[in-house]
Amino acid sequence: MCPPVYMFVEITAGTQPKEPALLHDLNEPLIEHAEGQLFLTETFKIILEEVLCKGTDVKEKVCEWKEPEELAVLLDLELRDTGEPQGKLLKRVKDVAKYSIKTSHPRFFNQLFAGVDYHSMAGRFLTEALNTNLYTYEIAPVFVLVEAEVLRGMHRLVGWTEGDGIFCPGGSISNMYAMNLARYQLFPEIKSRGLWGLPRLTIFTSAESHYSVKKGAALLGIGTDHVILVKVDDGGRMIPEDLEEKIKLAKSEGSVPFLVSCTSGTTVKGAFDPLDHIANLCEKYMLWMHVDAAWGGSVLFSSKHRHLMKGVDRANSVAWNPHKMLVAGLQCSALLLRDTTNLLKRCHSASATYLFQQDKFYDVNLDTGDKSVQCSRKVDCLKLWLMWKAVGSAGLEARVDKAFIHARYLVEQMKKREGFHLLVSISITLVAPLIKERMMKEGTMMVGYQPQENRVNFFRVVAFSPLISQKDMDFFLNEIERLGKNM
Amino acid sequence: MCPPVYMFVEITAGTQPKEPALLHDLNEPLIEHAEGQLFLTETFKIILEEVLCKGTDVKEKVCEWKEPEELAVLLDLELRDTGEPQGKLLKRVKDVAKYSIKTSHPRFFNQLFAGVDYHSMAGRFLTEALNTNLYTYEIAPVFVLVEAEVLRGMHRLVGWTEGDGIFCPGGSISNMYAMNLARYQLFPEIKSRGLWGLPRLTIFTSAESHYSVKKGAALLGIGTDHVILVKVDDGGRMIPEDLEEKIKLAKSEGSVPFLVSCTSGTTVKGAFDPLDHIANLCEKYMLWMHVDAAWGGSVLFSSKHRHLMKGVDRANSVAWNPHKMLVAGLQCSALLLRDTTNLLKRCHSASATYLFQQDKFYDVNLDTGDKSVQCSRKVDCLKLWLMWKAVGSAGLEARVDKAFIHARYLVEQMKKREGFHLLVSISITLVAPLIKERMMKEGTMMVGYQPQENRVNFFRVVAFSPLISQKDMDFFLNEIERLGKNM
Repeated sequence: MCPPVYMFVEITAGTQPKEPALLHDLNEPLIEHAEGQLFLTETFKIILEEVLCKGTDVKEKVCEWKEPEELAVLLDLELRDTGEPQGKLLKRVKDVAKYSIKTSHPRFFNQLFAGVDYHSMAGRFLTEALNTNLYTYEIAPVFVLVEAEVLRGMHRLVGWTEGDGIFCPGGSISNMYAMNLARYQLFPEIKSRGLWGLPRLTIFTSAESHYSVKKGAALLGIGTDHVILVKVDDGGRMIPEDLEEKIKLAKSEGSVPFLVSCTSGTTVKGAFDPLDHIANLCEKYMLWMHVDAAWGGSVLFSSKHRHLMKGVDRANSVAWNPHKMLVAGLQCSALLLRDTTNLLKRCHSASATYLFQQDKFYDVNLDTGDKSVQCSRKVDCLKLWLMWKAVGSAGLEARVDKAFIHARYLVEQMKKREGFHLLVSISITLVAPLIKERMMKEGTMMVGYQPQENRVNFFRVVAFSPLISQKDMDFFLNEIERLGKNM
Repeated sequence: MCPPVYMFVEITAGTQPKEPALLHDLNEPLIEHAEGQLFLTETFKIILEEVLCKGTDVKEKVCEWKEPEELAVLLDLELRDTGEPQGKLLKRVKDVAKYSIKTSHPRFFNQLFAGVDYHSMAGRFLTEALNTNLYTYEIAPVFVLVEAEVLRGMHRLVGWTEGDGIFCPGGSISNMYAMNLARYQLFPEIKSRGLWGLPRLTIFTSAESHYSVKKGAALLGIGTDHVILVKVDDGGRMIPEDLEEKIKLAKSEGSVPFLVSCTSGTTVKGAFDPLDHIANLCEKYMLWMHVDAAWGGSVLFSSKHRHLMKGVDRANSVAWNPHKMLVAGLQCSALLLRDTTNLLKRCHSASATYLFQQDKFYDVNLDTGDKSVQCSRKVDCLKLWLMWKAVGSAGLEARVDKAFIHARYLVEQMKKREGFHLLVSISITLVAPLIKERMMKEGTMMVGYQPQENRVNFFRVVAFSPLISQKDMDFFLNEIERLGKNM
């Protein structure tokens, strides 16, 4: 036998108590597996019945509206000193299911997420059960490889043979990453020295881009004033000529333009900016081209519709949320990069020695955690991988194509009906909120409304869930008419 | 009947295809519920058997180590054009479970998360199934109320009767929020104008604080050079006298100190900074006091150990991750604020009219999404609420106390053994990685090692899972001895 192994052992639970409190037998774990697994199984049954069967049944309500005060009482929210028996807890589970919005319901047209995919759901349950962190190969061997494969698949769809990327907690954070990478590439000293001493940096994005561009500019210390809004055409698409004018103006005022954030699928209108045209300008003025394709990115699966993103392969970065049109489940948001110089890691790394030891027994390039500004990072890739495996790229293409067909059908049907107009009438500013209130309280469907610039409130129908049928489109039109009566 | 309801209806799936492709009958949803639910049920069985039964059984391995190249082949990672049959997909689910780390295993001592709580797990499955977004009451009525209640419960433990807060995707982001709020409070114009024109801002944190403080400073445009590291004592606690000296020095150099980020439970040593003493200095120099209690915050449940965080009620903000010591499951991280002036919302809001309409039929203060820099925000509160309901504050207190008892036991047992020393010997620098390699390849347990300043590699035993018993502590010691033989 060799000499004894010396090592420094630290216990991280903190300092030790002065008197050892014998709360219980130390050989008795505090968790009762059999009871726990029974509870979990009962919960699973409730999920199947209430959320997945009833929750997707058109004969059932989309929501069971309660006023906040009433709901708080129904849920018995209060956290107490003592625990509750299993039966009472199962009642809580049922109540949570009952009073939550059924976002998988075919008549949920309210948000850019909807529907259910069972393979994705299986991936999500498995992810939750395995409960690990996507920062090292050691701790997440399967997920490190799965994330890399999913990113490769998305890269190919963008049109890149190589690149880099990472899953982020939502598209807003993905957009912020792009900003941070763009300015770091231009001024690497920013990481250590901050923005002081640097010229004023400006970002360009369309007037109809997502609000996260401004939120990101504020968080990153750039300031919302330095986000220049470029005009859009009637279809909501960025006007390249206006972009060029604004770049020139900013330069003439002494600012340093560094990033154009294009949008593929704007939040309200679903418009796609002309990427090829913008790419020309980005090359001419040497700007980082980012594409916020959180919503629209999924058209890349469709040979019919991917022309909407023509030129995306010329971008430096793309943010794409499969939790939206692809129904991968919240959260699932990828930031894709054309870069092959390890920019992501150079920009974000802190090289913590407790986590990213360089003397490991495997290739430490598999430890992707230092590419992130997070430490704990949730596994968001498995669900997408499993869904993609299950239906193939062709199956995802069919879903995207179907969404366009439904949209087209809805527009055609609307044109035939008296009360629907692709027009604006000042008299309805207050009507949309009233219809919405009736809709929620009856719970028959959910669709969002919003004002747009100088226009009044209008409804935005989001119709892409793989669960919906033509009948649901007809229902939407009939229901808006019915709810709008007697106002 | 009233005049027809005029409204502007937009379809966000994009422009319409020129030729309507009839891929399938539009009245046939693309999702087959019965088949999907069967798949989900089979997956649930695999989760129960492989992850929750075998994965927590001490007779089974913690990990089934495979080299990356081999694992990639075993998993058949490739994403193809066509989908796969259900049987093959279930094989994937099994393989993912098989080759993933069993973080709930009693011999997983590797990270600051471990173990399993079945009520939390039930909450997580339910959250996944309900698939919604925590930004408005409209879309997440139950979760808006649950988040507020859980935050109230955590506030009370900190010692506040009111306050504000939000769940963030991990402690690093929570820490960044604190930085952003602190500087916004001092210089509100930063949100629109950015850092230009402002004096250099400096942050103070201990030399053993988490790396996210530096990552945050880099992302926020402050720069890592402006994070001043304060010396620690032998126990790894920030030395207040050194903090005061460094504050004075920074001021004398023309910088503006604005934030002290204290740590309650440092990542490597589990040290608790002396909060009361630091609070005195923060008051004296009018600095924002942030407490990174990602790991240690859970001691607030314990009447025996909460003295470690004495003075936390004087902080402006606290980051606390129940996904660590409380076993709530990744991700579960709360940022708690003492502020009652809506600072969080003022600092982060973009007031998007498509989401946060002000003419809603309910109290729009319940729409908490604009407090976040995210748009999509995952629901991370339900699992904690359900677990807290199930075992009560007293049950969570017992878990924290047990973790301390195990730690104490381990230290005592180590003292009795020949090969273990709370000393450092230069000869073992390479021994820890070798032991770790043997450990992973045999899969018997997992524990992390790291260097610390000028010390060599040592193992950090994280022993707080509610599943562990005294026998697991004994096993740890025996196993390190066994693995260290013949080196």
